[in-house]
Formats: sequence, C-alpha cells, structure tokens
Amino acid sequence: MLLTSKARGVFPIAPTPFLDDGAIDTASIDRITDFYLECGSTGLTVLGLLGEAPKLEHAEAVAVAKQMISRAASIPVIVGATAPGFAAMRALTREVMDLGAAGVMIAPPNTLRTDEQILNYYHQVAQAIGTDVPIVVQDFPQVFQVQMSPSLLRQMFQEIGSLAMLKHEDWPGLDKISTLRRYEHEGSMRHIPILCGSNGIFLDYEMARGADGANTGYCFPDMLCEFLSLRESGNVEAAQDLFDAHLPLIRYEQQPGVGLAVRKHVLMRRGLITSAAQRKPSGTLSATARDEVEHLLRRLARKDPRAQL
Amino acid sequence: MLLTSKARGVFPIAPTPFLDDGAIDTASIDRITDFYLECGSTGLTVLGLLGEAPKLEHAEAVAVAKQMISRAASIPVIVGATAPGFAAMRALTREVMDLGAAGVMIAPPNTLRTDEQILNYYHQVAQAIGTDVPIVVQDFPQVFQVQMSPSLLRQMFQEIGSLAMLKHEDWPGLDKISTLRRYEHEGSMRHIPILCGSNGIFLDYEMARGADGANTGYCFPDMLCEFLSLRESGNVEAAQDLFDAHLPLIRYEQQPGVGLAVRKHVLMRRGLITSAAQRKPSGTLSATARDEVEHLLRRLARKDPRAQL
Amino acid sequence: MLLTSKARGVFPIAPTPFLDDGAIDTASIDRITDFYLECGSTGLTVLGLLGEAPKLEHAEAVAVAKQMISRAASIPVIVGATAPGFAAMRALTREVMDLGAAGVMIAPPNTLRTDEQILNYYHQVAQAIGTDVPIVVQDFPQVFQVQMSPSLLRQMFQEIGSLAMLKHEDWPGLDKISTLRRYEHEGSMRHIPILCGSNGIFLDYEMARGADGANTGYCFPDMLCEFLSLRESGNVEAAQDLFDAHLPLIRYEQQPGVGLAVRKHVLMRRGLITSAAQRKPSGTLSATARDEVEHLLRRLARKDPRAQL
Amino acid sequence: MLLTSKARGVFPIAPTPFLDDGAIDTASIDRITDFYLECGSTGLTVLGLLGEAPKLEHAEAVAVAKQMISRAASIPVIVGATAPGFAAMRALTREVMDLGAAGVMIAPPNTLRTDEQILNYYHQVAQAIGTDVPIVVQDFPQVFQVQMSPSLLRQMFQEIGSLAMLKHEDWPGLDKISTLRRYEHEGSMRHIPILCGSNGIFLDYEMARGADGANTGYCFPDMLCEFLSLRESGNVEAAQDLFDAHLPLIRYEQQPGVGLAVRKHVLMRRGLITSAAQRKPSGTLSATARDEVEHLLRRLARKDPRAQL
Repeated sequence: MLLTSKARGVFPIAPTPFLDDGAIDTASIDRITDFYLECGSTGLTVLGLLGEAPKLEHAEAVAVAKQMISRAASIPVIVGATAPGFAAMRALTREVMDLGAAGVMIAPPNTLRTDEQILNYYHQVAQAIGTDVPIVVQDFPQVFQVQMSPSLLRQMFQEIGSLAMLKHEDWPGLDKISTLRRYEHEGSMRHIPILCGSNGIFLDYEMARGADGANTGYCFPDMLCEFLSLRESGNVEAAQDLFDAHLPLIRYEQQPGVGLAVRKHVLMRRGLITSAAQRKPSGTLSATARDEVEHLLRRLARKDPRAQL
Repeated sequence: MLLTSKARGVFPIAPTPFLDDGAIDTASIDRITDFYLECGSTGLTVLGLLGEAPKLEHAEAVAVAKQMISRAASIPVIVGATAPGFAAMRALTREVMDLGAAGVMIAPPNTLRTDEQILNYYHQVAQAIGTDVPIVVQDFPQVFQVQMSPSLLRQMFQEIGSLAMLKHEDWPGLDKISTLRRYEHEGSMRHIPILCGSNGIFLDYEMARGADGANTGYCFPDMLCEFLSLRESGNVEAAQDLFDAHLPLIRYEQQPGVGLAVRKHVLMRRGLITSAAQRKPSGTLSATARDEVEHLLRRLARKDPRAQL
Repeated sequence: MLLTSKARGVFPIAPTPFLDDGAIDTASIDRITDFYLECGSTGLTVLGLLGEAPKLEHAEAVAVAKQMISRAASIPVIVGATAPGFAAMRALTREVMDLGAAGVMIAPPNTLRTDEQILNYYHQVAQAIGTDVPIVVQDFPQVFQVQMSPSLLRQMFQEIGSLAMLKHEDWPGLDKISTLRRYEHEGSMRHIPILCGSNGIFLDYEMARGADGANTGYCFPDMLCEFLSLRESGNVEAAQDLFDAHLPLIRYEQQPGVGLAVRKHVLMRRGLITSAAQRKPSGTLSATARDEVEHLLRRLARKDPRAQL
Repeated sequence: MLLTSKARGVFPIAPTPFLDDGAIDTASIDRITDFYLECGSTGLTVLGLLGEAPKLEHAEAVAVAKQMISRAASIPVIVGATAPGFAAMRALTREVMDLGAAGVMIAPPNTLRTDEQILNYYHQVAQAIGTDVPIVVQDFPQVFQVQMSPSLLRQMFQEIGSLAMLKHEDWPGLDKISTLRRYEHEGSMRHIPILCGSNGIFLDYEMARGADGANTGYCFPDMLCEFLSLRESGNVEAAQDLFDAHLPLIRYEQQPGVGLAVRKHVLMRRGLITSAAQRKPSGTLSATARDEVEHLLRRLARKDPRAQL
C-alpha cells in the first residue's frame, strides 16, 4: 500500500519504546500500534525525528519499522529516512519498502540554503532512492534550518512526481497553507496532502486553512482523531472546545529538548508504553517537570476523561 | 528611579504606535501608557525588539522614550538599547538615562558563541555605557542565536554589578529558572529579578519555578496583572483558569513574524492605539488571519469580558 | 557622479582611521584617500563592514563619508548603508547622496532565507531609499548567512533597475561568476559590474572568470591596481607572479576576527594612517601576530619593494 | 597501537577512492596508503568529513577502515566516527577498534551551543564508546557551527582522560594554539597533540605557535612531510619557501564545496587514485575549474618538480 494523494486524517508519529536498560521494547510497539489503529489513525510514521531514529543501529531501525508495518497492515506506514548521505538513505528505504512501507519521510540537510540547492537535493533524493518510492517532505525550518517558500514547494511538487505529501511544521505557517491551496485552486499546482506537525499546536487553524490532518506525536492521538471527526461532522466549535482543553498540555509537550520526555511520560502513564526511557543523548524530565505534567493532566481530566490516569 | 533587584510584577513591552502614514502617533503613546499604569503595571519597557526600534531614526527613538518616561513617571521605564556597535548604544543610553530611564535592555549580538565571548561582551557593554546604568540581559536564543547556560548567567551577574535583571525567554526554560533560583538558595548567586517574555506562553509554570513576573507585550497586559494578583492572593487555580482561557490567543500572538501584527491589531481593537500600522519591513495580517483573531476574541469573550470588543 | 554599469578596476574598502583615544583621525582620512587616488583606484567604498561603521554615531558616519567624498571627488564613492531598519538606512542614504555619493552598498539581514524573501527585501530597499539611488548588493554568505543563487541574482538585477553592482564574496564563487556571465552572453541578464571582495584571495581566477575588478580593503591596494594593469596589458603570468608573492599576506589578512587588525597595522606601518587603533568591540593583534606580520612583510619585500618598510 | 600524547608529524586525511561507477576502489586504497607510508606520514585518518563517510553504508565503512588499518599497520590509524546518535557511533567504534584502529575522531553536533552542553556531550561520548578508546576532538566551527574556547578545551581535556588529540581547524586559530600551549607551560593543562586541518592553509604559523603537525588531506602530503622535516632540521625559511610555492594551490583546494573535487582530481593526476569520482551528493569540477587546477600545477612545477605531471 503506497502513500497516495488521498492521504488525510491522523498519522501519529510513533515513538520508539525502550525498556529501562535501553533495549527496544517490542511488546510496547505492538501495544501502541494497536492503540493507534483503534483510535482511528489513518496512517502512521515511524523513525521520525522524535522516534529517536539516530540512536538506533541500522538493524534495529529496520526491525522497528518491520514490526510496526506488519502490525498496522491496514494503514499506510511512513518511515523516516533522513540521512546525511544517500547510501544509508537508499539502503534503509529499499529495506523498508520491501517490508511494505508506504513511503519515506525526508528532511533537507541544514547546509542547503537557496531554492536551487533545495530543489536539486530533492531531485537527487528521488533518483537515489528510486522514483517509485513516495516521499514525504518534512518542512520544519525551526529544527532543520532550511526554509522552503510556497513557490519553491510548488516547483518541487510539480517537477518531482514521487513527492507525495507535505509534513508541514513551518512557523508561522498558516498563510503558507493558504498559499499552497490557492495555487491548487488556480490550477498551477497538483493536489498534495498536507499533514501538520509541531505537536499540533496550530492544528485548529491549519485545518481551517486547508490542511488534511495531523502528522504529529502528541500524547493524545485519540483526541486528534476525535477533533478531526467533530470538525468533519460540522461541530467546529465543539471541536475547538476539545482542542482548547488540550492546549495547555500541547504547549507544554511542544517545548524543544524536553518535549519527547513529556510525550513518553504521558504515554507511559496512559499504559501505552512500559517505560519512558530514552536512549542517550536525551532530554530528561526533572521531578518538578513531572509534577507539572501531572498538574496539567489533572486539570485536563476535568474536561476530557481520557486524562484521568 | 533606577531599576533595582526588587523589580517584579508586569513590565509590558510597549509597541511603538504609528499612524497609517508611518508617523509616530504620540496621542496613542499617551493613551496606552495610561492604560499600562491603570491596569497595575509595575514597570515598562520601550523600544524592545517588537517596539520596532530599528525602524526609528535616532531622534525619533529618543522622543518615544522621552514621552513614555515622563508619562509613566511613577514606575521604572527600561529602554531597549541593543545595537551592533558601542557608539550608538552609549549615545542612546546616555540620552535616555538623562531623561529618567530606569535602565537599558541589551541582547547579545548573534556572532557570540562561547561562554567567554558572551561574558566579555557584557563586561565591555558595562564599561561602554557606564557601570552606573542598570542593564537588563535579554536571553532569547531563538531570535538572537546566543545561548547562555545557567552557570554562565551566574558568572555574568556575579562579576558585573550593573546587570540588574534577566529577561528570560529561553526555550525550554523552566529548568533554567529553577537552576538560577537554586544557585541563589545555595548562596552562590545574588538575587536577581527574572521577568519572562515569549508572549507569556509559559508564564504559569515560570512563576511556579521562581520567576518574578512578566516582561512581554501580550495584548492583554491587564490579564497578566490580574493573573499575578490572583496567584499572589493564593487563588492559584483561578489564576490558571484565567491563563488557560487566554492561551489560544497567547499562542496565536506568539507566532514569529506575524506576532506583532496580531498584537497591534488587538490593541487597536481594544482602543488602546489608533492604528495597527507597522513601519516596513513588516509582517502583515492577511484577511483570513484577521478573521482568526476575531474568532479567538469571540471565544475568549465567553470567559473574559475584556475580550468583548 | 552616480555609479554606472561601466564600473571596473579597484574600489578599495576604506578603513575608518582612529587616533589612539578613539577619536576619528581626519588627517589620516585625507592621507589614505590621496593614496587611493594616486595608486590608480577607480572608485572607493567607505563605511563598509570593515570600516567599523556600526561603531560610529550617525553624525560621525556622515562626517567620514563627507570627507572622503569631497577628497575623492574624481571617482565614485560608495557608502555602506546596511542597517536593521529602513529608517536609519534611508536617513543615511539621503544625506550621503546629497553630499555626492555614487551609491550605497547594502547587505541582506541574516533573517532572510528563501529566494522570495531576499527578492522582496531588495524591492523594499529600493522603494525605501528611492529608486534613483544606485545600490551595490553585497553577497557575502560567510558573514551574513544569506545565500543568493545565480538565478536569484539574475532575477534581482532584472527586476530592480537601481541595483547597480555586485560585490562578490561568496565562497566558493568562481563558478558563480561564470554563470552570471553566461546569463549575460545568453541575453537573459543585463551587464552588471562584478567587483570582488574576500580580501582578494581569489582575485586571480575571479578576473579570469569575468569579474571587473576588486572591491576589498587589502593593505596593498596599489598591488591590486598593478595586478589589474598587468593583466590588462597582457602580462597575465607577470600579474600572477605579483599576486602569488602577496598571497601569504593576503591569506593572513583574510582571517576573520583579526583581519582588520592586520590591515590597519600594515596601513600604519606604510604611513597611510597614523594609528592602528580600532573602536571596541574589536579583534586585537597579539605581539606574536605582529611579529608574524613583520615576517610576512620581510619575505614579501624580497619580491615587492613596496613591502620594504 | 593506540593514539598517545606523543603523536606528531603528518596524519593525512585519506579520501575514499571510488571507481567511476561508484564502487569502492580497493586497489587505489592500497596504492594511496602505500604512498602515505613512503612519504613519511606518521599516522593516518580515514572516514573523515572529506572521506565521504556519510555516503558509505555501514559495512562499506568498516571494510574501508579495515583495509587501511591493515595496510598501514606500522602507523596509528584514526577512524572518523562522528554520528548523530550514540548507537551508530559505538557500533562503528567497537568494530574498528577491534580491527586495530588507534582511536576515533568525533566532531560535536551542531545543536550544541554552551560550554556546558559541549562538555557534557564529550563526557557522554566517552562513556558511550568506552573510556579506553582514544578520541580526537575535531574543532572545526566553520563547518560544525560549534565554538570551543581555549578554556573549555582545557576543561574537556583535563576532565576526560580519553580525549587524546585536538584536530585544530578553528579560524582564526593561531592565538588559540598559543593559549593552549600557555596553559600547558603554566601547568594547568596536560600536553596534548595538536594537529592542524583547514587544508594546511595556516600550517606555517600554526607550527610556530606550537602545533605538532598536520592532519589534513591536501593533495601533496609529501610536501607537508618535507615541510615539517625542513623545519625540524632548522631550515625554517627553506620550509617557508616550499610552503609558499604551494599556497596558491592550497588556497584553491581549501574552497568549501569544490575542495574535495580538486583534491581527488590532483590525486588522480598524480596516479595515486584511479578515478576522481565522488558519490552523490557531491561538488563537481567544471571544465574551467579543471583548467585552473592544471594552471596551478604548471606554475607550481616550476618550483616543485612533484607537480610536473
């Protein structure tokens, strides 16, 4: 099942669960994958930036991807394949595509600056991994230090047929979505799925601007699914109420550096993974921060029983 | 009235109001300054990053500072004096101190990297502008690309007597506040006022970690004052409810690039300034973005009547 | 005398001479300006990055520009006008153009990333300072962190009529010059003068690629003039011998941070300025570094008597 | 044979030779390794930044390291092991140490900023790969965007016993070497070998400042060896003459982006590798650039017969 231009809904970014000793926790992989399916996810992304991909050896990365792909066989699974060189990128891509991945997600290296350089890079990537492999472009300037203007994105998607989706986490990015959709309506750009990251902190208005869903690892993916459902069924203000109830925690989890620690802590508290352990180098959650997360959950539980832990 | 180590509360970052033709709007300067005083501000910062300081000619900058300093004579007024060279920095500092400013705020140039370079820079600044002038250190790595660790900040404040306050907008920064306060309790660092920026998006937990208040330009400074009052009188959860009601708008206004346009738009809608005009180069608010702000205000008004406009 | 598309030859970047107490040294301004004229300079740039412009107050900057413009009345004088906001940029531009400047040099702010942002910025600059003012685009990614591809530069120069010259200091940049000249030969770009910076370290091959001359502050501008003369009269290998003799010193002076100290030291040793003093913040020349410069001069003097000091 | 504090001389950075079809060229690996030994190299570094390490799959990287380690059994061989995560770093390190490597070279990730972060990172690295593995610290801010002050380096080397050598390519860096050596003479820092990179462009004065040799891939490593020999035997000016003769080419090869293409081209022209091919993504050498390199070689050959090709 390859990624198509019809992709939409919630594609959670899956964490890589570890046991306290750093070993990969395969039981938790199954448990959280099942949860993603049950709550209505329409796709899944593994080995993303916050999937601690760089901390896995190659064979481990393939094993994690393989397990998630088989377990979530009913939905498309994207595999993060960003790498400093094309050899490793191609090697991982080939293996996971053979295992049934729906495509790969690739962010630009932080040495790129000009439109020309970025465009050339994605042309080279498509050639290197094979033009039959759907590519998700990760547009996250805050982390990758590469900025892609709407007109550059249009050119990239028009020239390179295998670019299949935009993971949008530019900031600010609302007008960027509007511009891309205007291009589409004007007929100068094909339709592409735009799924949004940044922990969903702007998902409310991103959807209003024309995004197709979320592609983020927020610790309540079930809320993201319900939020989209409510919107789709016309209950926009109820959706917004739900979203706003989660915003204090979303904001807290979005903090760079400690965000993943927050996310894994809540997923553990929800019983979805066994341990919040990260492999090093890692941000850690101080005792005070843990208390703050519990405070956020208690307050959230008043409005959303899922947070009653 | 010079800035002292007792500073606390809300020091709004004042915008520079312009008329639609780009001229400085002196009537609005008086109006918004009066509002800051009425709502309980304990200080004021003018010509900050979002005060469009770089777009003012020298004489204009002095005039704006002068007007605000006289109008807000009962509270300390800090003047932004960040500059690429010491000549302009000293010139502006001397003029505004003579006019009654309480101190100046200085951010590090983005060429600094090592602890040694940053420490030397602030030593040189203190010498250049005069060691009798209180300095607010603006710690905003996301914009200035300079990171100061807690131990470096301790060394800076211990070695340089005229450093008088920390404007904290590091991200993530909660543990940073805790560490600085631990230094103080251990006796290895003198007490310094820590006032928080970043549009107040973490103000709730920043206060819990030991911050002394807010130093930001959020469009409802009166909410910030009330939030601190409620906390001080022990109504921590009520304070949090108020804060959470504003969080959707706080988040929206915190967007880099368009944040100032949002802020000026709401201040105008509140009648505090006459026009939302910015001087160029400027981020602009699209029609859709304006609608989104109105939507945020309408939703906020259900919980906070101040937003009923 | 405005800058035209016929500009070529050597436009030295003039230092701002200070006395040991930091006062501007007007006698040295006259002396070095006369030297530039005598040795065959075809233009002059003042208040550039290494002219310590940010360390001058506005009135000082205007005074320095005024003195050099009147003294060098027979050749076009470019004034550096890079500024964080348009108000200061326009103010300085208007004053120096009224005093007879030939144009202004403007580098992009380091917040720009995409082609679109850079293009828009220069459109706004041209509007802000007046489309009758010739602009030199300073293309120096190593310092300004903004990269302009050849195709972007073509678009900028085609769309904005007042862009009058490219100060080329991209690195590596030889193929960039070739590409721009290819555009010109193909008819897709008008002719623009390309003058090269980076202390001239690639001037030999830059000229071969189609550059029109040098726009740099190397401490032997007379060598740069002779080098171009030799090339023009067909003595390319003799020119190269002269250039290679200077290369050890050129390389030494090109070091970021200490380069200006080296330059001012040699200019002082040559009797062209009275003191090597810089205003703070400044790189300094250690005693060992001074010895190294003397060693470089002694070795150079074996091949070029101008270095016999 | 582990790297010790007595390391000195020339440690060439070996390129990874490829055939035109991108396959690893094992014959050339033997040939160039033999050449390094014959010309007097005292060590060797493989899989460095310019060894195209990120373009090799893991198994390939190990194979290249293995072949060079066995072939150069008489001298210490350092293996580049910089990686975004500790899993891959440890895996490669363990394998190559078992194969007889003398140590690994590790550059800091570009996300590090403060002294504290950098120090912690190297502590974690030493723990992760084993404190028995000698580590070469690559100090190359221009590429890695991490600046380490002399006092930080002292602290790192004093606290972490397995740091065994500094690959110095800070720029400007002469005073840095002097400061580190001053620390040593004062007794506040143990002796560490400092070998210099940056294509050797400052090797002359770096040696005078107290460096122990070169650790760079300049296409004439035999010249670097002769240069050090001449210096050691007291012929400092003859050494300098030799160095200056090479400086035009050294400068040309030092260009970022195209430097490796120049280096491989000359090594091919010298018969040391069969093809100048690089794996993608790669900088390429235009026809004009190739002509320029030939011009540089012809001119160099007048003074150094090794360049007569």
